[in-house]
Amino acid sequence: MTDRKKPRILVCNDDGIDADGIHVLAGSMKKIGDVTVVAPSEPRSGMGHAMTLGVPLRVKEYRKNSRFFGYTVSGTPVDCIKVAISHILPEKPDIIVSGINYGSNTATNTLYSGTVAAALEGVIQHIPSIAFSLTTYENADFSYAGKIARKLVRKTLREGLPEDTILSVNIPNIPESEIRGIKATRQGKSRWAENTIERDDMYGNPYYWLSGKLKLLDENTAYDEYAIRENYVTVTPISIDMTNHEALTAIKGWKLKK
Amino acid sequence: MTDRKKPRILVCNDDGIDADGIHVLAGSMKKIGDVTVVAPSEPRSGMGHAMTLGVPLRVKEYRKNSRFFGYTVSGTPVDCIKVAISHILPEKPDIIVSGINYGSNTATNTLYSGTVAAALEGVIQHIPSIAFSLTTYENADFSYAGKIARKLVRKTLREGLPEDTILSVNIPNIPESEIRGIKATRQGKSRWAENTIERDDMYGNPYYWLSGKLKLLDENTAYDEYAIRENYVTVTPISIDMTNHEALTAIKGWKLKK
Repeated sequence: MTDRKKPRILVCNDDGIDADGIHVLAGSMKKIGDVTVVAPSEPRSGMGHAMTLGVPLRVKEYRKNSRFFGYTVSGTPVDCIKVAISHILPEKPDIIVSGINYGSNTATNTLYSGTVAAALEGVIQHIPSIAFSLTTYENADFSYAGKIARKLVRKTLREGLPEDTILSVNIPNIPESEIRGIKATRQGKSRWAENTIERDDMYGNPYYWLSGKLKLLDENTAYDEYAIRENYVTVTPISIDMTNHEALTAIKGWKLKK
Repeated sequence: MTDRKKPRILVCNDDGIDADGIHVLAGSMKKIGDVTVVAPSEPRSGMGHAMTLGVPLRVKEYRKNSRFFGYTVSGTPVDCIKVAISHILPEKPDIIVSGINYGSNTATNTLYSGTVAAALEGVIQHIPSIAFSLTTYENADFSYAGKIARKLVRKTLREGLPEDTILSVNIPNIPESEIRGIKATRQGKSRWAENTIERDDMYGNPYYWLSGKLKLLDENTAYDEYAIRENYVTVTPISIDMTNHEALTAIKGWKLKK
């Protein structure tokens, strides 16, 4: 039987249902709510806000060690949210959590991130949503991340979130004792320095492989990427309104005629 | 020989290199600059800011009526910009134009749009960038759109754009005489009302197909989607900084402890 007072929590990610991060996040959320997991059947990193238009989606039950864990969708993180709300869940969840992602979703990575996109899709559907990332690809230790996720979900359920806005939370991969605090930050200015590689295949035809290195452009801990490197957990409010409101005044000044 | 005074213009889109819109845009741009076309080999609508991480990309020359038109990339609009700048163009372009897209890139569509994402990727790479859309899927008449695109590119090359910001331009599919003017607008609040369809395949297994209808939530012509319906061309400055700066104050007030 469902306890009505328990919040209904939808858990998604972009690393796919096999990733450790979503198992940690679902486990953490089960301590405070009724959890439904709906995640991509395969890793879908770097998908941004992509959705699947030209082909149908399949939904499957996913079991781990023969126990039911959740549902997979044969699409993107955004697809997962759409199908979960329209067809899997009997009613809208109270909150959506996405992650815990491998690798930082700071700075311009915010635009590429499927983890963030899943949360943004939640807000588009008027559901408070939070994206969580652990800022490493190696030797991930999710134990503190799972704890801080629960804390932030509780806080969000109590306080609510500003209109049309998610929280993008990044957690450094260091022991809890070394965390210097939790900081509300803005999206950093760091960017990928492109390093796309050209190689020849066995037939002598070139192919290209995207690659790059994040170049630190942030000056202080007001920015997410820099604060992370200074051992803070960062909480960045990200909006689905991408209008540059200051620039709007400048463009109005152009006095464009048809 | 290249005329050094002519601006170097990179043309991309998300409907793929066969789409009419990119041929109109490239033709229009050739009147004012040196044009290179780099576009997805196939339609890539709704891809958002997706990039291709797990597989290599292929670049091919594309000809129309046996004449060279441009290059195709076997990936997303964002991939096209990355590969164009790192490997196809001998130097950075002066401006990137994306489109002309079929269907409006207003309101929350801004997040799903590959056309907008290509332009955002341009700005990430410090190149002024503009996305163009004709707000129809049927009976498209690109003649005025091609003209207004040229006008806005000229203006942008003269004035520059605000930092980290693109222009997302939407053009109603009506005769030029019915256009009421060009309006600097903000991203609208209209959203897709989900209508994802569940059907059974021939084996009795369900599949899901994303679908929806744009629900008008904008109240006045300050918002792109509403202004379009009132027969204005809209010019919306869209930023790669998605921080909700007002919300930042609220989150700081949470006084989060680790």
